[in-house]
Amino acid sequence: MPDDRQDSLNAFVRGQRCLVAAIREGALSGLTFAVKDLLDVAGYATGAGNPDWSRTHPVPAQHAPVVSALLEDGASIIGKTMTDEISLGILGENGHFGMPMNPRAPDRVPGGSSSGSASVVAAGLCDFALGTDTGGSVRVPASFCGLYGIRPTHGLIGFEGIVSQAPSYDTVGWFARDARTFSRVGSVLLKELAEQRAPRRLVVAADAFGFAEKGVQDALESAVRTLEHCVGARTDEPIAPAGLNVWQGAQRVLQSSEAYAGLSRWLDTCNPLMSYSVARALLRASQFTDEERGRAALIRQEAMGRMRHLLQPGTIVCLPTTPFAAPLKDQPLSTLGYLRDQISCLTTPAGLSGVPQVNIPWSMPDGTPIGLSIIGPWRSDRMLLTIAEAFEAATSKNGQRK
Amino acid sequence: MPDDRQDSLNAFVRGQRCLVAAIREGALSGLTFAVKDLLDVAGYATGAGNPDWSRTHPVPAQHAPVVSALLEDGASIIGKTMTDEISLGILGENGHFGMPMNPRAPDRVPGGSSSGSASVVAAGLCDFALGTDTGGSVRVPASFCGLYGIRPTHGLIGFEGIVSQAPSYDTVGWFARDARTFSRVGSVLLKELAEQRAPRRLVVAADAFGFAEKGVQDALESAVRTLEHCVGARTDEPIAPAGLNVWQGAQRVLQSSEAYAGLSRWLDTCNPLMSYSVARALLRASQFTDEERGRAALIRQEAMGRMRHLLQPGTIVCLPTTPFAAPLKDQPLSTLGYLRDQISCLTTPAGLSGVPQVNIPWSMPDGTPIGLSIIGPWRSDRMLLTIAEAFEAATSKNGQRK
Repeated sequence: MPDDRQDSLNAFVRGQRCLVAAIREGALSGLTFAVKDLLDVAGYATGAGNPDWSRTHPVPAQHAPVVSALLEDGASIIGKTMTDEISLGILGENGHFGMPMNPRAPDRVPGGSSSGSASVVAAGLCDFALGTDTGGSVRVPASFCGLYGIRPTHGLIGFEGIVSQAPSYDTVGWFARDARTFSRVGSVLLKELAEQRAPRRLVVAADAFGFAEKGVQDALESAVRTLEHCVGARTDEPIAPAGLNVWQGAQRVLQSSEAYAGLSRWLDTCNPLMSYSVARALLRASQFTDEERGRAALIRQEAMGRMRHLLQPGTIVCLPTTPFAAPLKDQPLSTLGYLRDQISCLTTPAGLSGVPQVNIPWSMPDGTPIGLSIIGPWRSDRMLLTIAEAFEAATSKNGQRK
Repeated sequence: MPDDRQDSLNAFVRGQRCLVAAIREGALSGLTFAVKDLLDVAGYATGAGNPDWSRTHPVPAQHAPVVSALLEDGASIIGKTMTDEISLGILGENGHFGMPMNPRAPDRVPGGSSSGSASVVAAGLCDFALGTDTGGSVRVPASFCGLYGIRPTHGLIGFEGIVSQAPSYDTVGWFARDARTFSRVGSVLLKELAEQRAPRRLVVAADAFGFAEKGVQDALESAVRTLEHCVGARTDEPIAPAGLNVWQGAQRVLQSSEAYAGLSRWLDTCNPLMSYSVARALLRASQFTDEERGRAALIRQEAMGRMRHLLQPGTIVCLPTTPFAAPLKDQPLSTLGYLRDQISCLTTPAGLSGVPQVNIPWSMPDGTPIGLSIIGPWRSDRMLLTIAEAFEAATSKNGQRK
């Protein structure tokens, strides 16, 4: 087992740079991957980023099925990776264990909660890594660390053997540095999806682009043009006529209420040590009323209808994954809270409606990573992976910045 | 320096079984004491029960004046003692460092937040110990561990060099096993108080006794009769006609709002690791409205008037210090929260109005400690210490249980 002290990224869980060899040859033979510490790897404590969690839960005897599927198709594990505490974070901070490094921007946060998985892939320590995405936890670190990252269609990949945050929104996704590897993982985990036809129409999310920082809008312009060439007819329209902030508010009520409901017994009996910010988020979650949850559910229902209407077969939507590049480290909570809410405004449309979203890495003129996202109809995940490959091929040919 | 591993009570702060010798001979020569980890002892980090507190504050260069006063009058320090995190607790729990043992009832909590100070005195490791009492943090552990303990008149002993919780309620007090030592410490720390006349009238707080568990009421009956002999004419009447719970509610709003105001900048910039329960209390504190604080201030003003009317010169009030003996350890937060509120109903009358209160140790038939409290008028602290001595003498003569 490699020495933990060699983890200069602070991205692996201490004592869990475990090597678990592939079970047999397969589509992923030769590839190595890392596993976010919310997913069970047999024989290793699942820590969920909080020391009291591993202390109060048994060491798993079995791999999570999604982990087994990868091992059975030829890939090997090189370690378990850090997560924001109980996955309740989007920036990659962890008060117990510190913050994994963002290899592409060391003075900035890596994004979370799948922070360690993004960090080790960005640093080239393995070929791909598993993360989870409930409210943005794959998409955001993918954007901040310059990686391909997918939030699959909700419910498509089983969530057994994984620490749940909010079942109505939990998904398991992955990161990779290149579109081909990214797509190969999909060929294993999304086997059940039929061959999908190519997209014909690109909707540029006018509201989401308007919400992003001007520098991000400008930098993504050429990426959108390339995407247009890959996809077809372009229209510009808002995706959330009611307001991205209204959808985000509903998502916050629903997602955090589910998270609190799932954790409340553990909190009551174990009184865990947590970062103040995490405890505060949980207590706020506990205070939403039935009335607020009811209103949020109505908003969700309308949002799902809107997305279904927008995402006719053959349509994809593009938007900035995050409204800005990764924030600088070590800012006060009062600043970070507002940044977090802004980020969630762009991750909510797919999260609230359950459709798949893929981050395509791009960068600012100074090289800092940002991301262009594509969202497709329910179960169009493999189409999104194919578009990512086509996009990468087009930009490589043109020598474009990515 | 004694070996920390010998701290079988888990009552000393790790690495702080410091020995600080008396500066000169004096009234306390030959006595040793311990210091709660909210008070500065020069050269030792003040930890306030939270690792992130000591990490983010400089090591004090000077003793707190109350510590200096004791060293200058002949007493020597044997160590710094555990506190509930940031003094925000009444039971003696600390998620970072564990719970000091209650030497008189090892299966029960020691009480807090001056938990370590009560523990080491009860175990006989030193003659007395300093604690702080904002909402009951000396009185409650004194009751639970079977010690004399005082919350002095608010403002009488300076609070410089001590981590403040809520300035309008913060006091520094002390514990001792016997009334004579208890009083000797007062002769140093309460020097400025003039000689005080003896009490003439005892008010038995009918509401507070009614609020206590029946077993506590019964056990305290003989103690009250002894006190009556020491003091004089007895009347039984409620001290809080509006309701002990109403006063307690007001105290909670006012005290915790001050605590949050004092800590909010630290929370925002340091995002400390805390027990979930402590973070929850702080967030709740942050949510009180100006309207709620205004209403609570009106209740406080009436309570102060009521106490002033009740505590005519020469009058003392007696009541159970806590409504029950120390709770068993390891109960869920939902249970502990209600116990905490019940305890606060009895500590609030003196805390809200600023008058002094002394716990006189007593016990249940099975030997479990409980406490009888005496409350006197503003600045009657030395009278209360004298009554405690007279009470102890009377019970020793009669061979009564204490």
